[in-house]
Amino acid sequence: MKAKLTLVGAGPGDPDLITVKGINALAAADVVLYDALVHPHLLQYAPGRSRKVYVGKRAGKHGHTQAEINELIVRYAFDFGHVVRLKGGDPFVFARGREELDHAGSYGIPTEVIPGISSINLAGMYGFPLTLRGVSESFWVVTATTQSGKLSEDLRHVAASSATAVVLMGMNKLQEITRLYQELGKGNLPVVIISKGSLPDARIIYSRVDNLLEEVQRQSPPSPGILLIGEAVACPAAKVVALNLLNHE
Amino acid sequence: MKAKLTLVGAGPGDPDLITVKGINALAAADVVLYDALVHPHLLQYAPGRSRKVYVGKRAGKHGHTQAEINELIVRYAFDFGHVVRLKGGDPFVFARGREELDHAGSYGIPTEVIPGISSINLAGMYGFPLTLRGVSESFWVVTATTQSGKLSEDLRHVAASSATAVVLMGMNKLQEITRLYQELGKGNLPVVIISKGSLPDARIIYSRVDNLLEEVQRQSPPSPGILLIGEAVACPAAKVVALNLLNHE
Repeated sequence: MKAKLTLVGAGPGDPDLITVKGINALAAADVVLYDALVHPHLLQYAPGRSRKVYVGKRAGKHGHTQAEINELIVRYAFDFGHVVRLKGGDPFVFARGREELDHAGSYGIPTEVIPGISSINLAGMYGFPLTLRGVSESFWVVTATTQSGKLSEDLRHVAASSATAVVLMGMNKLQEITRLYQELGKGNLPVVIISKGSLPDARIIYSRVDNLLEEVQRQSPPSPGILLIGEAVACPAAKVVALNLLNHE
Repeated sequence: MKAKLTLVGAGPGDPDLITVKGINALAAADVVLYDALVHPHLLQYAPGRSRKVYVGKRAGKHGHTQAEINELIVRYAFDFGHVVRLKGGDPFVFARGREELDHAGSYGIPTEVIPGISSINLAGMYGFPLTLRGVSESFWVVTATTQSGKLSEDLRHVAASSATAVVLMGMNKLQEITRLYQELGKGNLPVVIISKGSLPDARIIYSRVDNLLEEVQRQSPPSPGILLIGEAVACPAAKVVALNLLNHE
C-alpha cells in the first residue's frame, strides 16, 4: 500500500465532461473524497471496494472545513493508499487545490493533479465567446466573494477594463456588481448568467447590467451560477445555440 | 444522412485529457477536421470509415485559412453528415470556434460545442496556482499576438493590475512583454513558461521577468508555450510538483 493523492477535476456537472485521465485515476482509487458539486454517476468509476466519502457542504449545514479535508486526505492516504480528491470543475480554478497539495506534500505524500473542465469553459459550450476579434482581446476571471465576504477589489479593475469579466461565486453579490458597472456608465453591457453548469436543469439568463436584478428576480436561477459581462457575449447567434442546446437536453 | 457540426476540445496535448463526451462525438463522426495541436492518437476514436482531414498549419507553410476551414465544414457536412471539428485545447478559448459555428449556422446546420481542457488549466496541472488567498484574487487571460501582429493593448492593463497574467501566444513577444513589466517597476515578478502543454516533452521554465529572456535563450523551450506572470505562481511547492511530474513522465 502506497500513500498517494490525486486531485481530479470532475468538470462542470455533466458526468461525461470528465477526462479519460480522471476516470483512470478514479479506477485506481482506494478512497474518493468528493464535493457537493460532483455528479454521483462519477463515483461508479471507482472500484466497488473503495471508500467514497462526501466532504462537501450540506444544505443549511456547514460541511467539513478545509483544514479537516486536508487532515482527512493525509489520514486516508496513510491508512488506505491512493486518495482521489474529486472536485467540481478544475481543482486549481478557485478550488483551493494548492492547499490540499501542500498539506499532503508536507507529509511526503506524492501528489498529482488532473485538470478538469472549469466553469469558465461553459461560456463556449453555450456558444458565448469570451473574446471576439475587434471587440475584446482578453477575459478576466475573478471570484466575487473573497475570504472576508466582501466584493473583490479586483472586480473594480475588471469593470473599468475592456476585458470580458467571468465572475465566479457572484450570485449573492449581484446588487454590488450592478452598481459597480453602473457607476462607470456601463449599465448597457450585456450579461449572461449560466446557472447549474452543464447539468440537465442548467439555465441561461441573458440581460443587460441595468436589467440584471429584475431578470434574476423574475427567473430566479438556481445556484451555483457564473456571470459573463462584456460586449463579446452579446453575440446574438450564441443565444440561439444556447437555447437549442437547452431545449435539446 | 444529417448535416451536423460538433466542435470538440481535444485538450492540451496528452490524449487522455479529452473528455468522455468528446470521445463519444468522435465515435459518431462521419468526418473529422483536425488541427496541428491535436494528438494523432485521438483520431482512433473516430470510425474507420470516417474521413480524417488535416486542416492545421504545416511547418514553413501556410495551412488552410479560417475562411477555407469554414467552407470545408459546410461542404463535408452536406456531403457526408456529422463533422467533428477537433481543436487543440478548448474550442472557444482564443480558438475562433465562434466563427465556425456562425458560418455553419448560417447554412442551417445544427451545431454543438463540447468543451476541452484549455492551456489555462495547465498551470494547475503543474501545481502553479493562478490565484492565492491574500496574494491574488483573479487571473487575466490574454493573447499576446493580435490580428494586427502587435502586442495586445490589454496586456498593459494586466501588467498594471494585481491579477495573475495568463499569456497565450506570447512566445515571440517576450522582449516586449518583459519591457512592459519592467517599465512598471515589476521586473521582479515571477514568471512560469509551460511549453508543449501536457505532452511527454513538456518543459517548465521558472524565472523572474528580469531574467526571462536570458533563461529562454539558455533553455530554448519548444513552441507552443504559455506564460504565467504574477506573485501567485511563485509558490515554491509548485516547482517541486512540476519537476516531479516531468521526471515521472
